[in-house]
Amino acid sequence: MIWYKKNSNDDIMVSTRVRLARNVAKYPFPNVMTKQDIDGAKQDIISALENEKAVVGELKFTEMTDTDISERQVLMERHLISSELVEKSNAAVAVSADEELSIMLMEEDHIRIQSIMGGFALKEAYELANKADDAIEKHVEFAFSEKYGYLTACPTNTGTGMRASVMMHLPALTMTGNIDRIIRSASNLGLEVRGLYGEGSKAYGSLYQLSNRITLGLSEEEIIEKLENIAGQIKSREEEAREAIKDKTEVADRLWRSLGTLRYARSLTSREAKTLLSDYILGSSIGIIDEKIKQSPIELMVLTEPANITKIAGGADLSAAERDIKRAEIVRSSV
Amino acid sequence: MIWYKKNSNDDIMVSTRVRLARNVAKYPFPNVMTKQDIDGAKQDIISALENEKAVVGELKFTEMTDTDISERQVLMERHLISSELVEKSNAAVAVSADEELSIMLMEEDHIRIQSIMGGFALKEAYELANKADDAIEKHVEFAFSEKYGYLTACPTNTGTGMRASVMMHLPALTMTGNIDRIIRSASNLGLEVRGLYGEGSKAYGSLYQLSNRITLGLSEEEIIEKLENIAGQIKSREEEAREAIKDKTEVADRLWRSLGTLRYARSLTSREAKTLLSDYILGSSIGIIDEKIKQSPIELMVLTEPANITKIAGGADLSAAERDIKRAEIVRSSV
Repeated sequence: MIWYKKNSNDDIMVSTRVRLARNVAKYPFPNVMTKQDIDGAKQDIISALENEKAVVGELKFTEMTDTDISERQVLMERHLISSELVEKSNAAVAVSADEELSIMLMEEDHIRIQSIMGGFALKEAYELANKADDAIEKHVEFAFSEKYGYLTACPTNTGTGMRASVMMHLPALTMTGNIDRIIRSASNLGLEVRGLYGEGSKAYGSLYQLSNRITLGLSEEEIIEKLENIAGQIKSREEEAREAIKDKTEVADRLWRSLGTLRYARSLTSREAKTLLSDYILGSSIGIIDEKIKQSPIELMVLTEPANITKIAGGADLSAAERDIKRAEIVRSSV
Repeated sequence: MIWYKKNSNDDIMVSTRVRLARNVAKYPFPNVMTKQDIDGAKQDIISALENEKAVVGELKFTEMTDTDISERQVLMERHLISSELVEKSNAAVAVSADEELSIMLMEEDHIRIQSIMGGFALKEAYELANKADDAIEKHVEFAFSEKYGYLTACPTNTGTGMRASVMMHLPALTMTGNIDRIIRSASNLGLEVRGLYGEGSKAYGSLYQLSNRITLGLSEEEIIEKLENIAGQIKSREEEAREAIKDKTEVADRLWRSLGTLRYARSLTSREAKTLLSDYILGSSIGIIDEKIKQSPIELMVLTEPANITKIAGGADLSAAERDIKRAEIVRSSV
């Protein structure tokens, strides 16, 4: 099921992602590949996926070079490809119908297997990624060292090649300002907290990605266990923070005003839309807002991203200002 | 008719006020009166008003000393007494049932006859004040000099003793920033532009009072004609400014958001309520907002003033924060 369509009762753990970095042994890393290397490596991987259709399912294959930039951005906004892939014309992606599995080719590594699911599902996501990994490995020899594990373009991924992450919605910790302390402690424990679109992105809408920083020296199971444990602790802190603010008039006032803005604004940036929708989720969760909105707020956060708006508007070449108007229109009809 | 209840088609000219300052010849000015003088002067004026009931109508007489502070503030918020009178315990006011006529005793002068009406009604307001003036003068000798005219405590009022003013709603000139230039030109023409509650008060809700600065050397008719003329010109500037902004998306966005806030906020200061209601008036006027609200926005501006809120809440001793919550509640149920 598409991650943002999952109707989970958990409004803190938004989604879970497991990513495995792999490289084909017989080719150099992407940054030094020739055109011939790239074509060869892609063909090897595509053949492997074709042969393993029974295991990995039917995947939709998209060459970046055949895809216009706004369509690539739509894929990124749905978290199916990385922001790096948007810019890479020789790269490609294979995506399952339910969008839980997406395999990027020629990103930083030859293969990036990603499994993304709604809610908190580290083990399920790991299993799915692992299944795809095993299936490909039947046909392709991965770059692997007995000493270090899987070899990757960037040494931080060497080892299991795994990055597991949980996208958490932490509006109360953001509001109370305690989020900074949480980020520091997670960092001290070897985890990383990033914004919505990974490295360097901001945590708009109070959405944070918690992930393991290093993979070397740890097993997949250890990484997942650690992440699961710390994400659970952060969730408890968020719940405590929600408890602490739920009777404050100024909080009720702010959250209700946000709903008013969602329902009345004639122009909205994607950043503001996320903040307002985040306020709605918080308000509903702590019992301040007793009105329902028509569409899932998380889904709406994705659908109101710039490229998604452009797509909804029929692929028209919208200016940023026109997009903000269209976004407000879509939001009004959805809340 | 109570000025803020008048349902005028004119949403620029909100109300008109004419005030005449008079003093009883046989007593010194209020600032140097003895207790005995004050009682005597009050009695003389009250007797005159009693005798002239057929002309001035039945007036409700309120001694400031018998009236608690919040009730005095209610009178001020309805523009029936000045902010100076709120603080003066020896003073009093006589108000007609329709609140168009209010006569303050022992304010800066012995007598301040005020006529206030909704909309643009300088001549009608002047006639009403004049009628009360003539009626009182039948029984009381006013301090008057052949050379200077009516003598008043403050020399700026000497002459006709008249201050005529128009309360104008100028949101578009405020938004475009042209209001500052307008204020300067009005000042160069001998007029004064003040905020909602006269001298030193801010123009919250884009409400400005335009009035004559001096009375000496001009007849009542000249003062009124001049004010009428300049108010008319300012009104045209406001209309032009509205025309210039009416198709701007950012204006539509701001005005609609204000309506959202009126309908969703859980806490509102009186200042913010005025600004939002002012936005509503503007939005309706220029055809951006096509939704009706239940109560007249001008009336709501008055009813959501602090003392009025306290009165509506049953005279409870509300803190400012509690008042803001109550105000938001009243606004929500009225828009």
